[in-house]
Amino acid sequence: MLKHERDRLGKNAILLVLAEDKEEELFSTSHLDELQFRYCKGKVGSMELQKIVAAIETTAKRNGIVNGEIYREMHALYHAIIEAMHGVTRGQVDLGNMLRTVGLRFSIVRGIPYDNDQEGEWLAVALYGTIGAPVRGLEHETIGLGINHI
Amino acid sequence: MLKHERDRLGKNAILLVLAEDKEEELFSTSHLDELQFRYCKGKVGSMELQKIVAAIETTAKRNGIVNGEIYREMHALYHAIIEAMHGVTRGQVDLGNMLRTVGLRFSIVRGIPYDNDQEGEWLAVALYGTIGAPVRGLEHETIGLGINHI
Amino acid sequence: MLKHERDRLGKNAILLVLAEDKEEELFSTSHLDELQFRYCKGKVGSMELQKIVAAIETTAKRNGIVNGEIYREMHALYHAIIEAMHGVTRGQVDLGNMLRTVGLRFSIVRGIPYDNDQEGEWLAVALYGTIGAPVRGLEHETIGLGINHI
Amino acid sequence: MLKHERDRLGKNAILLVLAEDKEEELFSTSHLDELQFRYCKGKVGSMELQKIVAAIETTAKRNGIVNGEIYREMHALYHAIIEAMHGVTRGQVDLGNMLRTVGLRFSIVRGIPYDNDQEGEWLAVALYGTIGAPVRGLEHETIGLGINHI
Amino acid sequence: MLKHERDRLGKNAILLVLAEDKEEELFSTSHLDELQFRYCKGKVGSMELQKIVAAIETTAKRNGIVNGEIYREMHALYHAIIEAMHGVTRGQVDLGNMLRTVGLRFSIVRGIPYDNDQEGEWLAVALYGTIGAPVRGLEHETIGLGINHI
Amino acid sequence: MLKHERDRLGKNAILLVLAEDKEEELFSTSHLDELQFRYCKGKVGSMELQKIVAAIETTAKRNGIVNGEIYREMHALYHAIIEAMHGVTRGQVDLGNMLRTVGLRFSIVRGIPYDNDQEGEWLAVALYGTIGAPVRGLEHETIGLGINHI
Repeated sequence: MLKHERDRLGKNAILLVLAEDKEEELFSTSHLDELQFRYCKGKVGSMELQKIVAAIETTAKRNGIVNGEIYREMHALYHAIIEAMHGVTRGQVDLGNMLRTVGLRFSIVRGIPYDNDQEGEWLAVALYGTIGAPVRGLEHETIGLGINHI
Repeated sequence: MLKHERDRLGKNAILLVLAEDKEEELFSTSHLDELQFRYCKGKVGSMELQKIVAAIETTAKRNGIVNGEIYREMHALYHAIIEAMHGVTRGQVDLGNMLRTVGLRFSIVRGIPYDNDQEGEWLAVALYGTIGAPVRGLEHETIGLGINHI
Repeated sequence: MLKHERDRLGKNAILLVLAEDKEEELFSTSHLDELQFRYCKGKVGSMELQKIVAAIETTAKRNGIVNGEIYREMHALYHAIIEAMHGVTRGQVDLGNMLRTVGLRFSIVRGIPYDNDQEGEWLAVALYGTIGAPVRGLEHETIGLGINHI
Repeated sequence: MLKHERDRLGKNAILLVLAEDKEEELFSTSHLDELQFRYCKGKVGSMELQKIVAAIETTAKRNGIVNGEIYREMHALYHAIIEAMHGVTRGQVDLGNMLRTVGLRFSIVRGIPYDNDQEGEWLAVALYGTIGAPVRGLEHETIGLGINHI
Repeated sequence: MLKHERDRLGKNAILLVLAEDKEEELFSTSHLDELQFRYCKGKVGSMELQKIVAAIETTAKRNGIVNGEIYREMHALYHAIIEAMHGVTRGQVDLGNMLRTVGLRFSIVRGIPYDNDQEGEWLAVALYGTIGAPVRGLEHETIGLGINHI
Repeated sequence: MLKHERDRLGKNAILLVLAEDKEEELFSTSHLDELQFRYCKGKVGSMELQKIVAAIETTAKRNGIVNGEIYREMHALYHAIIEAMHGVTRGQVDLGNMLRTVGLRFSIVRGIPYDNDQEGEWLAVALYGTIGAPVRGLEHETIGLGINHI
């Protein structure tokens, strides 16, 4: 059974990514520490989807959320990223080829989200930002969440 | 130009849908009122995608977020719902046919999200809940956001 | 090389499907006869995609456009229908599951569209009508064209 | 309720894009003028999908069909273009990456297609041409139509 | 690093599913035993995709390839099945809705496919059979393979 | 009716592509010769999907499996390749844009797979290899099969 909402990976990953520098009242990372979750946060903007994927992978490795030497971990992260990008792109996982660009914040959270410890560790990737034409201002918000066992 | 993050449709729709009954400290609807946004919230669970779509449409009409007599408004809402379902389903907008079910909360927010009033009203549909096998507990979190001009 | 536009399968199939009973001035089937094309036309409305496919297949067989005993011919027709439905559904080839319905006219045209006779016979399936909510009036136009070698 | 077929956006957009220079008898733009529709027409060929999108957007702006300063209008046009490209690409909205290229004529029509004036203005993007290998002659016809409220 | 081809999960799963009763010379399960892989095989035919998924899940649980009580294991299996169905359906993971049916043999193989034991166990689902119209004989072959960490 | 399994195009194409140099005992091409199938085999690795398509097309033409001058034949081959790539990519037919690369062996087999000679010639394209991150070792197996009438 999933833990109560406030102790889940996905909800925490989304709240973490939504928190702007000045909105810390919305979300406190101390809760993530109590839950013994590993987490990190970053920013990336590009018309090239592969750069988004690479930026998230690199940040996850540098912050020790995943071990870049173990394919198992990178495979779990990769699929979580692509699933999150489905929410962002809504139909086809593509940016520049479709003449659109994104500016995203992302968060990655790793931990045990189920009551039963046998369920082991899972990973959440949350994305929030804007998507639109490669012209300043011609854009709207977008969000995505990917979850995978690791 | 989009307004500052805290005054945007999508971020507010997500925070509204994430707020559980007991977590009102996370999110106050008074901010939505100040922004003169129209909004509502509901719940739906099903293996049939069409029931999810119908539940959101009905709630939006009953709460006066959209006018069910005007196709223009229903067309905008429909596409926002389907876009949000892309985030939930991550690959193919399908549930029971793929032997999976969802339990979702949804929020719908309508208002002016750009500095320039000529941009007019837009609509955000946010979804949060669980997706998984039609067996209690075999599920993980899922999220989706759809945005459209209205 | 494709023949000149007015002698092609796809353009003729679209003009045939666009011609309403009272608009015969727009399109004369005598041109199709001169080109030695085989053709037929029909109507179907449904929320079930499989009924659309079945109606087109049945009409094609009854009018001798394809031979229902030869899988090769039915395989060519099936893929042309599904390709045409991509234009109609624009994203996911699905109707009722996504709470939408169609009312379509369809045409099927078979013949030699290339200068080089070695290219043999090809098939065009054209669709025109409306797609929308299962509520009268909440709909817009839609079109699709599928082309395959046979 | 949609107007009668001959006064609709989509059918007129398709007839406009199908009309070759020498086939003016097929279609008279005076009907579009009577309907008070705004419209334009253009040509583009490319293996890069983003160039197709850009060409249609530029033509629409230059001809005053949409206002390039208003995101609302560009958002409506963008989605109509992508929907039309679904009909052209039939499965994945991609060209060069899948080693195929298109040569297209396009038309854009804007106006009021419903009896009820409250439905306001809508936009149709119609595409007609050829798709195939990047080798002259190895190609067949293709068509697409996208419709959106604006 | 993946082990040599003959010791891999996917290749063995495909050879296992391809082996008919009378073709045992093509493939010997003793090799799978030496590799300490867990495996099983089954058959299913349906126009309903959910029945295919359910049949594979049930067979995997009954043969002890996965533990049906652990969501982690069922999640890994589910995604491997859906990935394999992409190969079978080639475009949209759908059967009856698109008026087509399948008759499939499936195999499921679980084991360690990498030299580095830290990569742990992975799962392969292989599918082989026919897909076509719901009319005997109007069908062609189809294949799919899904691989996931478990 | 399809011939018995061991005389079919798809199964033979898969067995041919699975056979490594040192595993000739698994598969003998003399069976393909008896069946009067035309066939060839090749290798390609790339992050660019279009290079995979081009390599298979070139090999098929050079080995006389298809006639590169006849669009009908190239059209049949192209769709068989893209269908096979669906099995390899499982969701979106894309490689580098999604930060992944493949190393593939491919086989192409052409012949008569049905008892009824009127069904004529069909084509099978089989792919086997690895897909993964552009980092050596971070990859798993993948397979695909496309079948088309020619």
